[in-house]
Parts: sequence; C-alpha cells; structure tokens
Amino acid sequence: MVEDGPPRVSVLRLGHRRDRDKRITSHLGLTARAFGADEVILAGDRDPSALETWDSVTERFGGEFLSRFEESPLSMLRQESKSGGVTIVHLTMYGNPWRESIPSIPLDKPALVVVGGTKVPAEVFHLADFNVSVGNQPHSEVAALAIFLESWIGQIDESSRFHGAKMRVIPSTNGKTVINDDEE
Amino acid sequence: MVEDGPPRVSVLRLGHRRDRDKRITSHLGLTARAFGADEVILAGDRDPSALETWDSVTERFGGEFLSRFEESPLSMLRQESKSGGVTIVHLTMYGNPWRESIPSIPLDKPALVVVGGTKVPAEVFHLADFNVSVGNQPHSEVAALAIFLESWIGQIDESSRFHGAKMRVIPSTNGKTVINDDEE
Repeated sequence: MVEDGPPRVSVLRLGHRRDRDKRITSHLGLTARAFGADEVILAGDRDPSALETWDSVTERFGGEFLSRFEESPLSMLRQESKSGGVTIVHLTMYGNPWRESIPSIPLDKPALVVVGGTKVPAEVFHLADFNVSVGNQPHSEVAALAIFLESWIGQIDESSRFHGAKMRVIPSTNGKTVINDDEE
Repeated sequence: MVEDGPPRVSVLRLGHRRDRDKRITSHLGLTARAFGADEVILAGDRDPSALETWDSVTERFGGEFLSRFEESPLSMLRQESKSGGVTIVHLTMYGNPWRESIPSIPLDKPALVVVGGTKVPAEVFHLADFNVSVGNQPHSEVAALAIFLESWIGQIDESSRFHGAKMRVIPSTNGKTVINDDEE
C-alpha cells in the first residue's frame, strides 16, 4: 500500500456476463491490481476463468492481490452500507465529477469501489456514499477505474507492492526487457 | 481541443481481432474520444461494427471525433516517422514510465498514439519517438490510453468539445439525469 493511501481497497464488478464481458472484466481486474486495489470481487455470471486470469498474473508478477466470486452483491452492499465501516464509491457516468469528488473520499477507511455492468439497479446509486463519474461521456469502466484509482490512491511503488514477482519488466527506450526468475 | 493541448491527436489501434477484441477495441476508441483524441484508426481485422459504434456515440453525444480503417499501419507508421511531422507515442508495458516521459512529449505537434494488440512488431518500438509505459504491470490498453491522454492532454471542457450533442448526462449525486434533445 502507498504511504497515506487508504487501508484497503476492494473493487466489485457487478453484472458480469461470461461471454460478452470476458475480456473487459479480465482487464478490469488487472487494472484494479495494477493501480493499487487489494482485491477484486466478481458478481454476475460465475466465471472461474476470470479469477484464474487474475490469480495467474499475481502468481507471476507478484504481490498479494486477491480475487473471489460474490453470489449476492446487493446483500453485500446493503450490509457494508449499514455497517458504515467501508466507503462505497460507485463509478458511473451519471455521477459527480471525479476531480470534485475525490478530495471528499476519506483515506483513513477501507473502500469498496463498485463498477457496474450493463444495468445497475437504482438501489446501488443510493447505497453508495459517492457516485463518481470520470467524465460524463460514454467510454469504458476500465478507463474509469484506472483514472479513479490513480487519482485517488496516487503513485504506487511497484517494486514493494508487487513483491515476490517471478517476472519483472524493466523500462526500456526501444525494446522489451523482461526478467524471468523462473528461467534463471 | 483544450487550450495549450496538442493540435491533433490520433489513436492507432494495431492488431484488432474481430471476435476476441470486439469490446476492448470498442472501449478503446470511446476512451480515445472521451479523453480528447480527435480520431481513432483501426488496424488488423477490418471490422465495420467498431467504426459504427464510435460514430454512433459521436452522433448522439456530440463533437467531431473521426474513425477510419487503415489497411497498412506499418507503412503508415514508416511514412509518419520519416516525415517527422507527427510525434509517434507507443504505449507499451515495456516502455519508459509515463510520469517521466510526458514532459518530453511536444505539445506543439500533432501526435499519433499507437496502442498494440497481442504481438507488436519490434519495428514499432523503433519507429516510435516515445515508448511509454503506464506502469510495468500487465493490465489493459484501455487503462493505459486513458491515463496517458488524461495526463498529457489535461482536463477537457466537455461542453465545448462535444458540441452539438443530442444526449447530455447531467452530473448527479444519486441517480441518472440525461437530457435527450431528440425527445424534446
């Protein structure tokens, strides 16, 4: 976790459809991991291949990112909302602008970042502590999650966060440099 | 275009595969539009449905975003590289960190932002003026494009950029507010 960052960030992916959303959902979880979330929670269709993709990247590229399936995301949100122990941030193109919202989101409480699929129930807008838009144009939940996490959490120290990596990419001006500890 | 932003930004999507990449490519073009690019260029499989999606969003949500298919993206890159009139920025997890690279990318020249698919030819790394990574972890070209454009171009004035919109989303604290001029 970054210094001064929130204690724990989970990303809840609502309404996953196994066929149509496979790669978007996969990218969404990897984006959560790369930009500092601790966990991705899949809801909608039960799809082990999404969890396998995420776990496989964590296995190779390090860190302690978790993934799990949630059968009843609305019950979970209701409980979390009632408990008050977690800040619920719902990313939606209908919400308030992220640049204005972010300074109000507490950094001393765990957060659950909710990312919708096609049709998000109206109740989610009410259970959320913050409905946040990353622009009010149609684009992508992957883009919205990246911008939100990067802006809210800030810069991540990749080498400490993704400790225990078997594969590491070394920044390069004009080629690919990958260190693969398995091959050494 | 934003004040002080680059004069023209095109996004080139390499290696599109019609079945596998349909939604990622669609999100990539919408992300290009939402974060201030002027044009998306599709390469790989010829896929009219991607262009239709992008044009349909522009038609409804405004602005002058263009889309087209490019048969020979490598020839195009070679030509652009030779002419020197355009800055070629290649987004890749193998590149140099974006926070360090962005201050060096000129804002007074048009830019071509290249986003790879599965296998990017080594030549692209050499034709690019900048190979830029948005983190060195595997995540998503959609996330990388969003972060890069948002960081480089800066805040967009949506109401002027997306002029002539038939549909407009009004930011809301806990619901959906959409103005649809077609229905008025």
